[in-house]
Amino acid sequence: MSSLSPQPYKGTRDYYPTDKRIQNYIFNVWHQVSELYGYEEYGAPILELLDVYAAKSGQDLVNDETYSFTDRGGRLVAIRPEMTPSISRMVAAKRQELGYPARLYSIANFMRYERPQRGREREFWQLNADIFGVDGPRPESEIIALVNDMMKTFGATDEMYEIRVNNRKLIDAIMTSYLGLDTVGAQLMVKLFDKKSKISHEDFRDKAIDIFGAEQAPDGLKKISKLLSMTSVKDLPQEIREDDATKELQALFELLGEAGITSARFDVTLMRGLDYYTGTVFEMFDLHPENNRSMFGGGRYDGLVGLFGVDPIPTVGVAPGYTTVELFLRSHDLLPDFPSSTEVGIVVLGGADSGALELAKGLRREGVKTEVDITSRKIDKQIKSILKKKIPFMVFVGEDEVDSEIYPFKDTGLAEEQKLSFERIVSVVKDRRRSNVGEFDDLFE
Amino acid sequence: MSSLSPQPYKGTRDYYPTDKRIQNYIFNVWHQVSELYGYEEYGAPILELLDVYAAKSGQDLVNDETYSFTDRGGRLVAIRPEMTPSISRMVAAKRQELGYPARLYSIANFMRYERPQRGREREFWQLNADIFGVDGPRPESEIIALVNDMMKTFGATDEMYEIRVNNRKLIDAIMTSYLGLDTVGAQLMVKLFDKKSKISHEDFRDKAIDIFGAEQAPDGLKKISKLLSMTSVKDLPQEIREDDATKELQALFELLGEAGITSARFDVTLMRGLDYYTGTVFEMFDLHPENNRSMFGGGRYDGLVGLFGVDPIPTVGVAPGYTTVELFLRSHDLLPDFPSSTEVGIVVLGGADSGALELAKGLRREGVKTEVDITSRKIDKQIKSILKKKIPFMVFVGEDEVDSEIYPFKDTGLAEEQKLSFERIVSVVKDRRRSNVGEFDDLFE
Repeated sequence: MSSLSPQPYKGTRDYYPTDKRIQNYIFNVWHQVSELYGYEEYGAPILELLDVYAAKSGQDLVNDETYSFTDRGGRLVAIRPEMTPSISRMVAAKRQELGYPARLYSIANFMRYERPQRGREREFWQLNADIFGVDGPRPESEIIALVNDMMKTFGATDEMYEIRVNNRKLIDAIMTSYLGLDTVGAQLMVKLFDKKSKISHEDFRDKAIDIFGAEQAPDGLKKISKLLSMTSVKDLPQEIREDDATKELQALFELLGEAGITSARFDVTLMRGLDYYTGTVFEMFDLHPENNRSMFGGGRYDGLVGLFGVDPIPTVGVAPGYTTVELFLRSHDLLPDFPSSTEVGIVVLGGADSGALELAKGLRREGVKTEVDITSRKIDKQIKSILKKKIPFMVFVGEDEVDSEIYPFKDTGLAEEQKLSFERIVSVVKDRRRSNVGEFDDLFE
Repeated sequence: MSSLSPQPYKGTRDYYPTDKRIQNYIFNVWHQVSELYGYEEYGAPILELLDVYAAKSGQDLVNDETYSFTDRGGRLVAIRPEMTPSISRMVAAKRQELGYPARLYSIANFMRYERPQRGREREFWQLNADIFGVDGPRPESEIIALVNDMMKTFGATDEMYEIRVNNRKLIDAIMTSYLGLDTVGAQLMVKLFDKKSKISHEDFRDKAIDIFGAEQAPDGLKKISKLLSMTSVKDLPQEIREDDATKELQALFELLGEAGITSARFDVTLMRGLDYYTGTVFEMFDLHPENNRSMFGGGRYDGLVGLFGVDPIPTVGVAPGYTTVELFLRSHDLLPDFPSSTEVGIVVLGGADSGALELAKGLRREGVKTEVDITSRKIDKQIKSILKKKIPFMVFVGEDEVDSEIYPFKDTGLAEEQKLSFERIVSVVKDRRRSNVGEFDDLFE
C-alpha cells in the first residue's frame, strides 16, 4: 500500500503546541475581555441545515463558498461558514427563557471554500460576541469598546489600527436623498463604494459615471468627491444632516468619545458585504503597510432572530477572526515567545523511575505541571528533549536524590544549577508563574 | 416566506450559557489534569481527506458513519469522526522536529452519522491525550493514571467506575494457543466476546458452539468458562502464562499498583472496536446502574504514524468523550450548580447611564466581570434579568450613587443589601472567587 500524505487538507492548518500556544494566548484575551464585559459563553453545532444560511447570509457565501452536502438521511446541510445565523436560531428557540440584554459569545471554527491566501484560510477560527435586546446606539458603543479593549490588551496602540464606522440606513439616505439614485442605481453604487479601495481612481470614476448616466454625472461626481473628503459625521451634507440615520451615528460617536475610544472614525465608503445588517456597520482596520486591510467587522442586524418564527430582537454583534488578528500581532511585533505549558521536566538517572514518578506525583499535587522522561535513555537525550519543548525548568532524579530528597534543579534559560528541596522547587516554579501574570495563561487572574 | 426551524440539526446540541458552564467545567478538568501530566495542547482541522480514515479506522466507521462528501474541487473529504488518524498524521509530518516522548492533547468536536440516543450524539466532543515514542508498559500506566486522576478530580470514588484492561496480543494468544482456533475462528470469537454484554447467555453459548464446531465445542466451552471466571492476570491458564503479552500485562498491573490506582482490573472479554490497536487496550466503565456502560477507552497503537510515509512510532492514547462523562457526573450527582461567569450586574437608576458605564469600566480594570443594563427599563425588570442569568452580585447606580461613590450592593443569594465603596465591592467579589477555587474556572490555580 502506498503511504498517505502527512499534509493537512488544503487551506486548513495543523496547530502544533508551538502554534497552539499563540492561538491560546489570543483566545484567552478574547475569553477574558468578553467575560469582563459580561458576555457569557455558548456553543453551537458545526453543522446546520443549509436553509439557515440561504435566508440571509448573501448569495456568494451560500452558492460558492459553503461546504454543503446531503447527509445520509437526505438533508441538505452545511459546515457553518459563520456564526450569526446559528446564534440567531438559538436565541429564537429560547426567546422567552433568556434574560435581556442577552450578551453571548463563542470562539469556534468555520469553513468557507475560498482560495487560501495571506490572512485567509478555508478553516478559520472566530470570536463572535453579540448583544440581543437593545436598540441603538448603546450596544453599538459597547461592542466597539469591547473589541477596542481587546486590541489594547494585545498591546496595540492607536496608530496600529482604526475602527471605521458607517450606517446602512445612512448609506440608503445618501444614495437616494443626496445622490438622487433609484433603487437599482443605489445598489450598484453601494457595490462600487465597497470595491473602492481595490480599484483605481479612474476605474472608480468611470463606473460611477455609468451609474449616474451622462446627464446626472457631473453633479453626482462632485457630490461623491465631497462625500469622500469627509472625516467626521459633522461634514455630512445639509441634505441628510437631519436624517434619523445621521443622528444615530452622531449619538454613537458621542458615546464612543465618552468611553475614551480615540481610534474610531466615520467612513462613508464602508459597506460590509453581508446582507443582514440593518443599521450601524463597522470594521477594524489593520494599518500596517504590509497588511492595510480590514481585519474583521460587525454591526446591527435586527431582522435575523425573527426569521425563526418569533418576534424579531434588536441585535448588535462583532466577529474577530483569528487569522487576521494573528497576522496583525505578528506584523506589529506584538507576539511574545511562549514557553511550554509544562513547567518542570524530570530527567531520570539510572533506573530511578519509581522515585521520579513519586516526585512528579507530589509536584502535580501542588499544581506544578510536570513531565517525566520514561524512556530510560541517556541523559543528554533527555535534556535535549526538554530544551526542544521549551520547558522552563529541569529536575534530575537518581537514587541519591531519592534518598537525600535534595534535587539538582535548573532554569533552562540560565547556566547555573541549584540543589533544591521539594518545597523550594514548588515555590520557585510558582514565583515564575506569578511574574508572568498578564502574559500567559493566568491573564487577568 | 415560511419561517425557519429554530431546532439544531438532528443529533447535535446547542450549548446555552447554562449548558456551556457545565461543558467548560469538564473541559477545564481535562485541560488542567492533562497539563499537570506534561501534555501539551494541539489543534487539528475539522476536515480531512477520507483516505486518512479508510486506512485503519474500521470499516463500519468509514462506510456507514462518516460525514463524507466531495468538495468543490473534487476531493473526497470527511468531517473527522475521531482524532487518532489526524494526530498520527501530524506527528508523521514533524517526526524529526518533535521532542520525545511527545505528550499531546486536544479537546475537539467530531461527527458520526449514528442513531442519537442516551449518551450518544452525532456531534460530540472528546479529549484526546496521546504519548508518542515509548514502548510499554510505562506510557500505558501513565495514560491510565491520567484518566483516573481526572475521575478523582471530578469527585468520583472507586465504587462509581472501573478501568477494565486487556491486551490485543494476549487476545490473539488466547484465541489461537489456548482455544485452538484458526484465523477465521479467532476473528469470529473476538467479535462474539466484544458483544458478550449485549446478548443473552444462551445466545453467547450457541454462537460459541458454532464457531468451535461440534467436536471442539465441549472442551472449548469449558475453557471459555474458565476464562470468564478470571479476576486477575494471575488466573490466566498455564498454556499462555509464559506468553510475552501476559508478561506485558502483568508489568502494567504492577505499575498501576505502584501508582496507587485501585480501580483497574483485568477483563479478558474487553476487545475495543477499532482496528488500529496493537497491544494494551482499556475502557473506563461507568458502574451506575442506569448507565452501566463503557464511557470511553484507549490503548496502544504502534502502527498508525508509519502509514504516513515515515518510520512507525510506538503510541498510547485515550479519548474521553464529553457526552458519557457528563452523563456519569449527572447520574452520580457530581455536577455542582454553576453561576454565570459574570460577577456583577449593574442596575441603572433614572438615566445614570454614564455613571454606570464609568463604574463598570473601573470594575473591569480590577478584573471584575461586569455587565451594565443599558435598556433604561424599570428596575424590577433589570433585577429579574440578573437573577435569571444567575449573576452572583448586583450593584445599583443612580445619580446619588455617582455623587457619593457609595453603592447599594446585593449578593443575589442573600436577603440583605449593603452600602459599599468601589474598593469594598472589588474585594467582596474577589473573596468569593477565592472561596470557589477548586470548583470553577480557577481550578488548580
